[in-house]
Amino acid sequence: MSHDVSSPLYAAIDLGSNSFHMLVVRHIDGSVQTMAKIKRKVRLAAGLDENNVLSLEAMQRGWDCLSLFAERLQDIPKENIRIVGTATLRTANNVNEFLVKANQILGHPIEVIPGEEEAATIYKGVAHTSGGMGRRLVVDIGGASTEFIIGEGFEAKALTSLKMGCVTWLERHFKDRQLNTTNFNNAIAAAKQTLEPILKQYCELGWNVCVGASGTVQALQEIMLAQGMDEIITLPKLQRLQKQAMMSAHLEELEIEGLTLERALVFPSGLSILIAIFESFHIEEMTLAGGALREGLVYEMVEGLRQDDIRARTLRSIQRRYQIDQSYAQQVADLASKLLQQCGSSEWVEESQAEMLLCSAAQLHEIGLSIDFKKGGEHSAYLLQNLDLPGYTRAQKYYLGELARRYREQLTSLPEQHALSGTSAKRILRLLRLAVLLSHRRHTELEPEFKLEANGDVLTLTLDAQWLNNNPLTRTELELEANRQTDIGWPLTVIAK
Amino acid sequence: MSHDVSSPLYAAIDLGSNSFHMLVVRHIDGSVQTMAKIKRKVRLAAGLDENNVLSLEAMQRGWDCLSLFAERLQDIPKENIRIVGTATLRTANNVNEFLVKANQILGHPIEVIPGEEEAATIYKGVAHTSGGMGRRLVVDIGGASTEFIIGEGFEAKALTSLKMGCVTWLERHFKDRQLNTTNFNNAIAAAKQTLEPILKQYCELGWNVCVGASGTVQALQEIMLAQGMDEIITLPKLQRLQKQAMMSAHLEELEIEGLTLERALVFPSGLSILIAIFESFHIEEMTLAGGALREGLVYEMVEGLRQDDIRARTLRSIQRRYQIDQSYAQQVADLASKLLQQCGSSEWVEESQAEMLLCSAAQLHEIGLSIDFKKGGEHSAYLLQNLDLPGYTRAQKYYLGELARRYREQLTSLPEQHALSGTSAKRILRLLRLAVLLSHRRHTELEPEFKLEANGDVLTLTLDAQWLNNNPLTRTELELEANRQTDIGWPLTVIAK
Repeated sequence: MSHDVSSPLYAAIDLGSNSFHMLVVRHIDGSVQTMAKIKRKVRLAAGLDENNVLSLEAMQRGWDCLSLFAERLQDIPKENIRIVGTATLRTANNVNEFLVKANQILGHPIEVIPGEEEAATIYKGVAHTSGGMGRRLVVDIGGASTEFIIGEGFEAKALTSLKMGCVTWLERHFKDRQLNTTNFNNAIAAAKQTLEPILKQYCELGWNVCVGASGTVQALQEIMLAQGMDEIITLPKLQRLQKQAMMSAHLEELEIEGLTLERALVFPSGLSILIAIFESFHIEEMTLAGGALREGLVYEMVEGLRQDDIRARTLRSIQRRYQIDQSYAQQVADLASKLLQQCGSSEWVEESQAEMLLCSAAQLHEIGLSIDFKKGGEHSAYLLQNLDLPGYTRAQKYYLGELARRYREQLTSLPEQHALSGTSAKRILRLLRLAVLLSHRRHTELEPEFKLEANGDVLTLTLDAQWLNNNPLTRTELELEANRQTDIGWPLTVIAK
Repeated sequence: MSHDVSSPLYAAIDLGSNSFHMLVVRHIDGSVQTMAKIKRKVRLAAGLDENNVLSLEAMQRGWDCLSLFAERLQDIPKENIRIVGTATLRTANNVNEFLVKANQILGHPIEVIPGEEEAATIYKGVAHTSGGMGRRLVVDIGGASTEFIIGEGFEAKALTSLKMGCVTWLERHFKDRQLNTTNFNNAIAAAKQTLEPILKQYCELGWNVCVGASGTVQALQEIMLAQGMDEIITLPKLQRLQKQAMMSAHLEELEIEGLTLERALVFPSGLSILIAIFESFHIEEMTLAGGALREGLVYEMVEGLRQDDIRARTLRSIQRRYQIDQSYAQQVADLASKLLQQCGSSEWVEESQAEMLLCSAAQLHEIGLSIDFKKGGEHSAYLLQNLDLPGYTRAQKYYLGELARRYREQLTSLPEQHALSGTSAKRILRLLRLAVLLSHRRHTELEPEFKLEANGDVLTLTLDAQWLNNNPLTRTELELEANRQTDIGWPLTVIAK
């Protein structure tokens, strides 16, 4: 095995209407590893006057920020850099004045990309970092534009960029900084009007899942987690947050548990736009995207990462990076699937994601051994809950970690989680543990024949008596396991026949 | 880059006088990764009668344990297995009766190794897992024998196995299970008498550091950590523990904070032997070895791991496994050394280990990026404190983790640690942070010229004004850093000249 001593760096810079962002990554072993993230809230859009002229102050804020980025850029190969400007720079009449000096500071050209190209790049960023099959609606609320995309896999079927964003909506509908019904209603109504032209086309195309990108959706996610909700964004939750926001009369006084200072200013305007989108498109659920514009720029530059099944790519990459025994991981996954089928998968666990999560946990449960055998399960949990796992949501990562924490030895009840129902979550854990035990000898040809029967939560595992006698370590472990599961109220009987 | 889908397994089994142990490992990328550890307290030595005949009950306990091990052994290539018996099997007159059946159960021959060979293998296990230069005295207190070795690097210069162990001393000197002065004094006196024949030779050879292996030393380490002491074993600490033990009249009532049930029975006898060793050899300090007999067996089988500088091997292996940017890590280490020299290393930080720890932290600080950029420092700390790092003690791993936790951004005071004095620990952290900041651009040729002056804890860093103007990001960061260090009472001034 050999590694490059230092893999080449890539940089993506996004001169957004609210913030400028710089992302520096390395390409390692099928994964993109973040090396630096720099963000400055330049609020360029706030510097546009009624004639779409960018103020000198706003431009100066932008240039100051770019001179910080420039230092870092000098050390990255030219061909590994992309710098794009979006809505405000598309709109500003005096954009050239900004660009001439900006290009000089950066020593690298800035591309002001059209809205459609921005939407296409966002979609690439989402497609490379989000799991799930079927048709997706992607919504990215920026500072001065909002992008809508419908796509399947890596192919976008509809791309739109609308001139509506959380900074422009703030200046237009919350100019007096009052958080009252009138301002919210006006903001929502104006957003709905902006959406009108694309509504028919998008609803006819249709979608299976809806994914949101941008700071507004990120802020929502953080608030929901801080307030103990699950990670799925729904209209009732948005309406509840609007009520919470209106309990402060004035924007400067806004306080919502989980809302950070830096996101507060554009939160009410972003929330209004999102409510309008939910109502106009009749969206039931939205989840947070794993990446958007900057990630799209990076994935366009880094070759060879395109694979239709993002989760499969993630599993292989993580297995390689953490030197997980892949053939054994596959064995456990196959055994786990077989056990689930014997239980009558679709009736016994309802959620369509359950089997995917079971097999993912089987593929990754030994990851903690790369840190140490002692407390291996704890280490697995730490890694799975903290690693960037494209294709898995935050709730799924949390649940995978809790499964892996319990893959062997003592068994404790699962904590509250939001990936599966409590009943399914428990059942999946029981099967994972059995699959690990039955593959103790780590070779497919040494597996026993078995039959698992499920009667609700009562499990009966039947094995060949001869095999059990020849495998006293596994027999002892299975007896212990029957006690452990039964002791915490999950009845399991092991029968030798 | 490519990995074997599954690297070959190795197994080492040690049929000790107190416990039987099985260790299963994989060889990955210059490291040995533990895949399974199985231990059964067989207490074979307790089954030896006065005629050195092993009782059938004791043999049966041994055979039962071996049939558990056997299941696991079947899946490991024959040539990757070593099974050794030690003192009790060397002594038992009816050893053949035990071995015939044991070989049959295991399907693999057991080697009953002579005491000297045991000592030599223990030394290999220590040499492969413990850092530090100079001459070592290694002491391994087993159930029925204690090994003494003096060596340098991988070469043993004296090897002895004495018939004295924690199980035999329990049966001989604590037969009535009373924890009184008489029993302790007798046990210590008898141990000293046993040591007498080797004392002269060993003291003439001499040593720089003393390392202890075995359960007794491990138990001591756990107790000391549980009671908030540092990890260095000294005679006063041992005597304090003897007093604590004697506060219980009877062995069955023994309670010492940090002493686990499974180690309790042979703790007083092991402690007596250790006190005798400290007194006879005039040992000042002893640390716990990273490995002993089983690790020696494993390292004898796994090719290509022999390297004189264990710490250098560990650093390279960890850098490869966690894909740390090696050329950058080296740059930070070089910068850190240079800063330390400018401060007048040997007066400014007293401990000889300080520079090694600074450079090790520099080599490893970015390890957490392999998990995620977000909270990278936290992840670095988690990994460094939990990984097996041959050549580094537990206290050193803890300190390295605390350094890495603070390598960037906010600065907080260091917690109590036992690797360096508080003053040195703080100074090393300050230099690490400066080295990271000054190498921001990640290329040696882009480093600034600098001059660091230390006046006690007051640091003054002088840099070229032109360079600072050309590197506004670093300049901003250095200004922030001067405030951060000064704010927590570590004055730092940055001067442009």
